[in-house]
Amino acid sequence: MSDGLNMSRRIRRTPYTDSVEAAGVQGFSVVNHMLLPKAYARTVEEDYWHLREHVQLWDVSCQRQVQITGKDATRLVQWMTPRDISGAKIGDCLYVPIIDQNASLLNDPVLLKLADDQYWLSIADSDVLLYAKGLALGAGLDVGVTEPDVSPLAIQGPKAESLLVGLFGEKIRDIAFFKFGWIEFAGTQQLIARSGYSRQGGFEIYLRGAKLGADLWDTIWQAGKVYNIAPGCPNLIERIEGGLLSYGNEMTSENNPLELGMDKFCTLNKSIDCMGHDALKAIATQGVSKQIRGVLFDGGPCPNCAKPWPVYVNDTQVGQITSAIWSPRIERNVGLSLIDKDYWSVGQSVTVHSSDGKLRTGNVSQLPFT
Amino acid sequence: MSDGLNMSRRIRRTPYTDSVEAAGVQGFSVVNHMLLPKAYARTVEEDYWHLREHVQLWDVSCQRQVQITGKDATRLVQWMTPRDISGAKIGDCLYVPIIDQNASLLNDPVLLKLADDQYWLSIADSDVLLYAKGLALGAGLDVGVTEPDVSPLAIQGPKAESLLVGLFGEKIRDIAFFKFGWIEFAGTQQLIARSGYSRQGGFEIYLRGAKLGADLWDTIWQAGKVYNIAPGCPNLIERIEGGLLSYGNEMTSENNPLELGMDKFCTLNKSIDCMGHDALKAIATQGVSKQIRGVLFDGGPCPNCAKPWPVYVNDTQVGQITSAIWSPRIERNVGLSLIDKDYWSVGQSVTVHSSDGKLRTGNVSQLPFT
Repeated sequence: MSDGLNMSRRIRRTPYTDSVEAAGVQGFSVVNHMLLPKAYARTVEEDYWHLREHVQLWDVSCQRQVQITGKDATRLVQWMTPRDISGAKIGDCLYVPIIDQNASLLNDPVLLKLADDQYWLSIADSDVLLYAKGLALGAGLDVGVTEPDVSPLAIQGPKAESLLVGLFGEKIRDIAFFKFGWIEFAGTQQLIARSGYSRQGGFEIYLRGAKLGADLWDTIWQAGKVYNIAPGCPNLIERIEGGLLSYGNEMTSENNPLELGMDKFCTLNKSIDCMGHDALKAIATQGVSKQIRGVLFDGGPCPNCAKPWPVYVNDTQVGQITSAIWSPRIERNVGLSLIDKDYWSVGQSVTVHSSDGKLRTGNVSQLPFT
Repeated sequence: MSDGLNMSRRIRRTPYTDSVEAAGVQGFSVVNHMLLPKAYARTVEEDYWHLREHVQLWDVSCQRQVQITGKDATRLVQWMTPRDISGAKIGDCLYVPIIDQNASLLNDPVLLKLADDQYWLSIADSDVLLYAKGLALGAGLDVGVTEPDVSPLAIQGPKAESLLVGLFGEKIRDIAFFKFGWIEFAGTQQLIARSGYSRQGGFEIYLRGAKLGADLWDTIWQAGKVYNIAPGCPNLIERIEGGLLSYGNEMTSENNPLELGMDKFCTLNKSIDCMGHDALKAIATQGVSKQIRGVLFDGGPCPNCAKPWPVYVNDTQVGQITSAIWSPRIERNVGLSLIDKDYWSVGQSVTVHSSDGKLRTGNVSQLPFT
């Protein structure tokens, strides 16, 4: 096993880590104080093509759940997000920006409605648990805020549905995109959503009960062999091409949801009791000064984007690339950047200053890349 | 540079990262979404002896500051900690457990009082920023809660004082343990505290202004050459021997401060407006059922403790080692464990089940190890 991180209890293992190590993981990243596999034996490019054709098993336990329960649960969730959740139904998954009183982005989780008084926020990399706890304690809300023993396992790729139908039955097909249902596994009821951090289709099983982790991994692994299953992880090429954003990379608390193109996840034409709603409406009225865009750029395969790369139009910096990689399909580099308003039109010529010292010519693109 | 982590903006670089890379860093850990150097060219053991004799420069920017300002600043800080801060003076550093309403530990930062209405919490690895923000928003407190542009650089080891006196003058000697003063650097006033995550003495400069990072590193580096300065990082041998605890390792939100031996940092004989005070007093009245201890154990140098190792007395599990390493000075392994009440007496014989499959005999020890 890689000891590249000085492994310790502080960087939490997951219910699948033993399985992931047995499958040959070659390193980890850290998200929410927990291990996220980052590579197996194959290259990112090989994984990309495999993900588009077959099916992969991803340990995404680091998508920790913040469970909010009780009489004021809906009120607390709504208070944190500018997306109207009053129409949400049990079984819905909603992508919800989490903001503060200034409409600054604190996270971009998926909200799962389990009951009228029970929600899970499946979070990106910041301690929403502490934010929700603080709000609840400060306002004296009648809620419980906890991190339950729930560890998502993603089954991603075009063959995911067939694999899971074989294991859990035809009802898998009835689960619509961003909805969840239930399966029986080892005598337990487990939540399964049609969702995941790729554009290739697939599901996430929100396993309750860490002790079932190895069994669940093995069960899917065995059934997946006929579908050419492989261990995997969020694929940087596929993610960027698909315009899937990463909290901490494309956005931080210095940004608001409208800059990130989350307009359709912000309810602005109706009064809702969200703490940052007025601030967000004011931003909407004024219009944002920069917005997320794709950037296609040349100069051969770019290095790893470890720190932001300035994007210029002539002598003016108009943005910074926060994620980038060579796309073997498009045969150009694909990157993500907030771009200043005067320069964000699709087709705009830009120059990317990558960390290898090259000045790379490129163009602003729509998202997702096509 | 090590790409062991899939470096990206999400795992933030520090004002010193370029310098640290130039100094030959061999890998990083992640704390508070930020890089923490974990090793240079020498072994942990070589670094340990060096730290005890000379002076080291540590990039501990990951000790992020949560700045709390405004009319209700003292009220908010006191609300989060069971340590009475009413007597704190400007210039004081206080180790303060941060708890919730149940007295569960959420962090164990150092509090710096900069003014009657301005504090910094120099945090361990959890987003206290979001907790404090949530409390303030929920309760409608008149405070600002921000993460300022402050990046601590530690100068640790017995020669740290001489080095800094040479650079900044005799007034460095007047700074008492866990107090801070001010130095002038590059035309700016910078905060310097006699503190640090070692028992070898030393200081931490809380650099305001990231752009000064490389200059500060170089200035200390050059002045340190005559003191045999080396780049370093918190040393696992020295930390464990010194009984310095690590949030996420020895303690999590499943623990309370009294279990971690923080009695002297909890004010129980006076009424204070801390949200978890009643819960903590109830725990104190009942007495804790386990408490932090050292464990000295044999069987030759132990492997890296990546996940907790059970500690047994006969057939009863009485604790789990959460950090451990071979001490070349004591010539036994040193570990940290919460130990159940009936077995926590110093000298108690135990067996440690380390991850290499060995059963290692040992004894409960006081902390720090001597």
